[in-house]
Amino acid sequence: MRVRDENKHQAIIKATVALVNEIGFASSSVAKIAKRAGVSPATLYIYYTNKEDLIVSTYMEIKTCLGSAVMEHFDSNLPVRDAVMQAGRNLFRHIGANPDVFYYAEQFANSPYNNLVDQQKLQRTFKPLMDILQYGIDQKIIKDAPFEILFAHLYIPIYGLVNARLNPGFKATPENVELSMRMAWDAIKL
Amino acid sequence: MRVRDENKHQAIIKATVALVNEIGFASSSVAKIAKRAGVSPATLYIYYTNKEDLIVSTYMEIKTCLGSAVMEHFDSNLPVRDAVMQAGRNLFRHIGANPDVFYYAEQFANSPYNNLVDQQKLQRTFKPLMDILQYGIDQKIIKDAPFEILFAHLYIPIYGLVNARLNPGFKATPENVELSMRMAWDAIKL
Repeated sequence: MRVRDENKHQAIIKATVALVNEIGFASSSVAKIAKRAGVSPATLYIYYTNKEDLIVSTYMEIKTCLGSAVMEHFDSNLPVRDAVMQAGRNLFRHIGANPDVFYYAEQFANSPYNNLVDQQKLQRTFKPLMDILQYGIDQKIIKDAPFEILFAHLYIPIYGLVNARLNPGFKATPENVELSMRMAWDAIKL
Repeated sequence: MRVRDENKHQAIIKATVALVNEIGFASSSVAKIAKRAGVSPATLYIYYTNKEDLIVSTYMEIKTCLGSAVMEHFDSNLPVRDAVMQAGRNLFRHIGANPDVFYYAEQFANSPYNNLVDQQKLQRTFKPLMDILQYGIDQKIIKDAPFEILFAHLYIPIYGLVNARLNPGFKATPENVELSMRMAWDAIKL
């Protein structure tokens, strides 16, 4: 009987992220990842059907965690400005605290593996945020632009700023986070 | 005598970008890249001392081209708004026209190879843009923020939008480009 062990599962996810960040997707074999996680390849196959499943599922896990973190304390009753800025602060904090999974996700999203992802499933996490943006558009509080352009100006700058490889000098101090979120808001407000 | 042939050099650069995009950095050996470029490994070593040099130099070449494209028709005598928006339009056009080199550059920047890059050398291309931002700060036209935060809100959204893997539905129509650049300007203006 195959028994799932959440500690082992988490160790496999950690090992996948660490090894891919060190040597890339192509060189990260199931055998090497299992060894790094301290489990046998047979154990790894309890959780994943093959390498592709492992790589893609790890990404989905990361993005689901990110989604929950960003939507933490999200309150649709707040003014639009407060709600979208709170999500941005959450994003700053989450990716600042998890640089390894962030590098993995960035490499993944720019690799051909990204074509295997169910994007609509990922976007569902952000439904309350999209609803409040739509409300802001309807109320003429924010610009009437496609969601992808609103999201790009609200949240993509954060990815660039907290990426220490791109911006080694940037520190996510409360002042810098507020300055950045104010710019993000000014970009989308009407 | 070793003779440099610019056609062969360009073929090697193209092959490096294509192969890395297909199979990643780790699996892209000098032998495979030479084969893809239709040259012998010995010929490749006329231009590059080793694989690392090849990977990093290709990135530097890509970023230098990008820098020239972004600064095309840049005119310091234009109003600050017009100058920074023109650079953004150039960036939209350049990465939209060169998706392969863009994917290579994104993967590179998120990989450990990025630590080998002379960032200051790359930034020198954008000196006229930084000068005009500083002028805008001094004249109280734009927000008094660190350059990295201004750049993040001006230009990083473009990278997210034109990345077809992240935003398969986005089309860089003149309307969308203008909408995005207006948001970028609203983000940084005082």
